[in-house]
Amino acid sequence: MLALVLDKELRVVHDYPQPSCGPGEALIRVRLAGICATDLQIAAGYEGFRGVLGHEFVGTVVSYEGREWIGRRVVGEINIGCGECVFCQQGIRSQCLSRAAIGIQGRDGAFAEYLALPVVNLHPVPADVPDEAAVFAEPFAAAVQVIQQVHVRPEDRVCVLGDGRLGLLVGQAIAATGAEVTMVGRHPQNLALAAGWGLRTGRPKQKLDLVVDCTGTASGLRAALEWVRPRGTLVVKSTYQGEAIVDMTQVVVDEIRLVGSRCGPFPPAMRLLQAGRVDVTSLITAVYPLEDGLAALERAGQKGVLKVLVKP
Amino acid sequence: MLALVLDKELRVVHDYPQPSCGPGEALIRVRLAGICATDLQIAAGYEGFRGVLGHEFVGTVVSYEGREWIGRRVVGEINIGCGECVFCQQGIRSQCLSRAAIGIQGRDGAFAEYLALPVVNLHPVPADVPDEAAVFAEPFAAAVQVIQQVHVRPEDRVCVLGDGRLGLLVGQAIAATGAEVTMVGRHPQNLALAAGWGLRTGRPKQKLDLVVDCTGTASGLRAALEWVRPRGTLVVKSTYQGEAIVDMTQVVVDEIRLVGSRCGPFPPAMRLLQAGRVDVTSLITAVYPLEDGLAALERAGQKGVLKVLVKP
Repeated sequence: MLALVLDKELRVVHDYPQPSCGPGEALIRVRLAGICATDLQIAAGYEGFRGVLGHEFVGTVVSYEGREWIGRRVVGEINIGCGECVFCQQGIRSQCLSRAAIGIQGRDGAFAEYLALPVVNLHPVPADVPDEAAVFAEPFAAAVQVIQQVHVRPEDRVCVLGDGRLGLLVGQAIAATGAEVTMVGRHPQNLALAAGWGLRTGRPKQKLDLVVDCTGTASGLRAALEWVRPRGTLVVKSTYQGEAIVDMTQVVVDEIRLVGSRCGPFPPAMRLLQAGRVDVTSLITAVYPLEDGLAALERAGQKGVLKVLVKP
Repeated sequence: MLALVLDKELRVVHDYPQPSCGPGEALIRVRLAGICATDLQIAAGYEGFRGVLGHEFVGTVVSYEGREWIGRRVVGEINIGCGECVFCQQGIRSQCLSRAAIGIQGRDGAFAEYLALPVVNLHPVPADVPDEAAVFAEPFAAAVQVIQQVHVRPEDRVCVLGDGRLGLLVGQAIAATGAEVTMVGRHPQNLALAAGWGLRTGRPKQKLDLVVDCTGTASGLRAALEWVRPRGTLVVKSTYQGEAIVDMTQVVVDEIRLVGSRCGPFPPAMRLLQAGRVDVTSLITAVYPLEDGLAALERAGQKGVLKVLVKP
């Protein structure tokens, strides 16, 4: 099958073996897949992953031991748990102590014609959610994870740092609660998009109850910390390359709560997508055929570019 | 009056002016005062404080506009609020945006014969709590702040890093909940004290639900982060001199919650002291007359020394 594979280098392979399914796993034909910053980091050699890249997708189940899934349009959680550790026993596969993650760690991903995934990872896509919206389920679930972890009160003043793919999703997830959200970023066209959704843009005039750092940079993190009020919360949403320096004395003196946040829950994300309470399709910058996957990744890495999709 | 004063240098002054009381303030004769790491940092020039050092004390009210406080034995919260900011209006003086703090910022402290403090800062000391225990009210309240901020469940596995003055108080405050507490430190005699209270000592065998860093060092903070389980909590209890480096990528991937923690509530601290649920007097290494305040601070700065008290 066709696949975008990282081994010694990143390349499009035409005869990559179709994945075989283990017990409880479904074979899924990928309809559309999305590129995120993690893919770009992995393509650059981060974590030494080898295999098919990609973890954001919408697809159709083409093979499974039980008939109920066949033909269904699905999205999927990316972490595959061991089923036995303390986290798996609580249903928290994203923190499984020996997890694999498609396209990230130990398991082939979604930039391919076919993908294998346990059915416990799958979520059906309602008929009225088009592929172009459903493909955002995974990153939007990660955005929803902020309000899963932190009680955002409707009266809270919130700031999201970073107006890229993730920041614009996080801003919308938080604004869904009625809280006043200010987006801070460096890309006028992305901020204009946020303003169109009713979010504020520009430098906040006072310190904030909640700040979410989606910049992925040490300088962004420092700025984020400066904007948190005493006893406020800073959610750290991006991973950083290298160590990010935080002044822990300020964290102590101001009694700030710092929350690391990663993958999130699909069902509420899908409910918000289905209800049209969030605009994801405006984030699509371009759609490339998988054949042109290298060009797609290059485009996704350009300044100010939002979501680039690949279509097998 | 006699006072330990920091101006160009730290010195004992015999004719320091007795404090004058503003509206709502009481004059307190200091009975006993305690030295903590913050005093040592301030004495070394941290924050540029000038005036009488000291913020842990027990004393007797000798003068106040209302008669009800006269003659009462009291301890006192150290932060003096403006009364008008958003935090003061919620009764959170410790986060007042323009606060003073005795012996730390903008206000004379407790290493003196007399001290002035608003009566809203005062808490009466029950008759059955001796001065030698009551003088720990402030640092023990800071220890209790950990369980004020974080829900420690009795089944939680907890580790406290740092077996100094603060660490031993934090360990006891958390153990009061029934949680299993392991103390990690470098001073055999201090760890023996903790073991005598039924706390565990030595390197934990697995990752923990809650880790509290009381080391005040960047390396301690790094070690603390290594011991937190995924989705666990790290409470940062000490201030650091200089920036402390934290790997935020680990915080994100493991979805760790990091909580800065400072001053705490006096009434529960006093209840625990009165009930004898916590042993503070074993922490007393020495009591010096205030006259010998310089020697007292020097002693407090020596390796492994716990609480040094000064008596005016």
